[in-house]
Amino acid sequence: METTIIDNGFIKQIKQIIANDLLDELQQQLKHIYAQDVADLLDKLDTSESRQVMLCIDSDKAVKVLVEMEDDIRARFLATYQPREIADKFIQFMDSDDAAYVLYHLGVKEKEEVISYLVDIEFASSLLSLMSYEEYTAGSLMAVELVKANDNWTVRQCIDEIRRQAEDVDSIYVVYVTDKYERLVGLITLKNLILSHPDAKLQDVSNREVISVSTSTDSEAIANLFEKYDLVVLPVVNALGQLVGKITVDDVVEIIKEEANEDYQLMSGITKNVDSTDKVWVLSRARLPWLLIGLLGGIGSSRFIELYESTLKIHPEMAFFMPLIAAMGGNVGVQSSAIVVQGLANDTLGTQNIVSKILKELRVALLNGLICSLLLFAYNAAFAHSYDLSITVSVALFSVIIFASVLGTFIPMMLHKMKIDPAIATGPFITTTNDLLGLAIYFTIGRLMYTSL
Amino acid sequence: METTIIDNGFIKQIKQIIANDLLDELQQQLKHIYAQDVADLLDKLDTSESRQVMLCIDSDKAVKVLVEMEDDIRARFLATYQPREIADKFIQFMDSDDAAYVLYHLGVKEKEEVISYLVDIEFASSLLSLMSYEEYTAGSLMAVELVKANDNWTVRQCIDEIRRQAEDVDSIYVVYVTDKYERLVGLITLKNLILSHPDAKLQDVSNREVISVSTSTDSEAIANLFEKYDLVVLPVVNALGQLVGKITVDDVVEIIKEEANEDYQLMSGITKNVDSTDKVWVLSRARLPWLLIGLLGGIGSSRFIELYESTLKIHPEMAFFMPLIAAMGGNVGVQSSAIVVQGLANDTLGTQNIVSKILKELRVALLNGLICSLLLFAYNAAFAHSYDLSITVSVALFSVIIFASVLGTFIPMMLHKMKIDPAIATGPFITTTNDLLGLAIYFTIGRLMYTSL
Repeated sequence: METTIIDNGFIKQIKQIIANDLLDELQQQLKHIYAQDVADLLDKLDTSESRQVMLCIDSDKAVKVLVEMEDDIRARFLATYQPREIADKFIQFMDSDDAAYVLYHLGVKEKEEVISYLVDIEFASSLLSLMSYEEYTAGSLMAVELVKANDNWTVRQCIDEIRRQAEDVDSIYVVYVTDKYERLVGLITLKNLILSHPDAKLQDVSNREVISVSTSTDSEAIANLFEKYDLVVLPVVNALGQLVGKITVDDVVEIIKEEANEDYQLMSGITKNVDSTDKVWVLSRARLPWLLIGLLGGIGSSRFIELYESTLKIHPEMAFFMPLIAAMGGNVGVQSSAIVVQGLANDTLGTQNIVSKILKELRVALLNGLICSLLLFAYNAAFAHSYDLSITVSVALFSVIIFASVLGTFIPMMLHKMKIDPAIATGPFITTTNDLLGLAIYFTIGRLMYTSL
Repeated sequence: METTIIDNGFIKQIKQIIANDLLDELQQQLKHIYAQDVADLLDKLDTSESRQVMLCIDSDKAVKVLVEMEDDIRARFLATYQPREIADKFIQFMDSDDAAYVLYHLGVKEKEEVISYLVDIEFASSLLSLMSYEEYTAGSLMAVELVKANDNWTVRQCIDEIRRQAEDVDSIYVVYVTDKYERLVGLITLKNLILSHPDAKLQDVSNREVISVSTSTDSEAIANLFEKYDLVVLPVVNALGQLVGKITVDDVVEIIKEEANEDYQLMSGITKNVDSTDKVWVLSRARLPWLLIGLLGGIGSSRFIELYESTLKIHPEMAFFMPLIAAMGGNVGVQSSAIVVQGLANDTLGTQNIVSKILKELRVALLNGLICSLLLFAYNAAFAHSYDLSITVSVALFSVIIFASVLGTFIPMMLHKMKIDPAIATGPFITTTNDLLGLAIYFTIGRLMYTSL
């Protein structure tokens, strides 16, 4: 089976089928479409059409579709159901992590009501405990469905346990081995389970070198573990070392993507996770805050330049290089910050401290500053701008590159220490700061040069 | 077992042990350290120390360490071995995808020599064929090690086949089912294999709805498939539909990370994949190209402003808002491009064409442009700047926001059509273009305003 492309033609066709009430044909059409593609389809249908679609697919697939839908469209869709229906038709069939995710996006009162209608009390109380963990921690990301086996069981007993739990646990790659206090002590892959003698004890054939995280480990650290150690699933333990859940790689892929997108959007001056299919006012609102900061910075720089109005009247040539100085300050600052932000995100900053980091950045800046300002001087000399202007511009450029580098390294490291997302530093914030800084340096040097003659 | 943090203290301790030739103690120390952490350690040791470490770990772990080492450090390390040793000690124990990756980083002649020393001819010829695929395609990413079973086998036969192949294939999550022409027709998870009756035929118990890619599918499309369909492993087929390899999720996590980093660095004006632990001149060289482009743009804008020297002499206040106009053009351009670039990367651009995309962007720009220019007008009116200047600045700002939005949307879409990485459009390139554009609009409007009075 190939994946299905949900294009306008297909959407139109499905709408037609629903309008004509051809439920058999709808069922036939949807049978061989993956849940993810059905979710894409539902993102384009209205809620009454979506209800028809959901009626034509089995409940296992329906809950997958629900999880994959866009958050706002799912909210609109679920709003047409009573809390009891949400529990009966969807939540009870879900894995705990998916159920917690869907519930998380409901209103507080509705969330509790839905849970109260769940027949399986154990499942309901797992959901309550999952939802009590802080966002972006292992606790909030994990699912409680997993196959665990006791250390002194045989391989045969373990396989029986898999049979018993198979229905509850969707995909099984490994079985976790626990001691009599439910503490995680090892794991065995299904492959090794198949290859081991049925009478072998798990304690003899299981792998005792298990990487695990605690419920409070944050999502970035989890993503780095998966990436570095090529994990597919990661067990989560509580403060006593007891096994409480597992995190699977598909969730982590999403975390990595989301974090990359977030950093990228912060850098480009977009405050909310939006994409180009969002509504105009959503896009506008996500972009306006940074534009207003840019505007404020621009007004600030205009007030600053105004102080030099008389200088500009005599030496209008000072204005020629204002954009160059401002732009170069911004560019260098963004480069420096980006390297720090990536290093922090990927945990590759190494063991150096802030001071040695800044000293290194300084050496890069000295090299690049020297090259750029010498080239600019050569240009100005060749094109016969006054000696004063040539010196002023080159010295200012050199200074701006140095300052912007140091600031660009220092600011994200400070933000990180202060537990603020350092990616903010790479956005219009640093460009605006460096614009102002650049102009201040430029005019100060200009005034020194021109009056010293 | 917990992961090991390779800090300066630990590195010093290991260096000491090696210096004192305490090989038993070294072996003891390394026994419980993951290959990935040993690789981190080797990144900090010299090559003769690294050779000692590699002698103290078993070959399975040694090849994992080799794959995880930094490319340049691995190259330096392998340079101390003869081609025959590289084949005997490392390559022959590797999975085909890892072997192809390590060989890819050797010189052309050495690569061929190493392969010629491989005893397993079948493995050697797989490596040759893997290396013949274009970079960043499924063919170049896949491993040939996989367990496949014939459609009319029983579950019991399939489990026997797993036993037979278990040594060659490291991690097994699914068994692929092929027809008599070796064409992929289904898959069965190990879980279902355990749960099925031993005498059941694979054609009856296997899942026939398999997502697969061809050897030429590019890495971005592969990453999107893994992300959307929550895959752990993806089979690769040739033009005849025959199963030729598999791609696992750990490679895809790396692709996603790398692509995100690449886009991020392009946006921040860094041309090569560097991190803050690289040498000064490497960092400098990665950053200089964009700085030089910025410099050229700045020189361009200085030539342009020079044309207006006489205007500036009479109206130096025109200079006040030059940085604001330039900066806002840059900010808006980057925002617009970033949304398009992300949409292209994540395949979420939807079905709209370029024209409708630009029309939508235009509506966002109209809204944000109106808000920003009205606020700026209010500020100028309140702070008693001349009416001429106020109108000029606000009209210029509005026009710049419109133009920058359209350009910012159009350029990455065009680059994408021309098969150039659209992320380039979000870097200093667009900022520089918009600086110039902004100043041109500003001075043109300024001239119109001032002469029309």
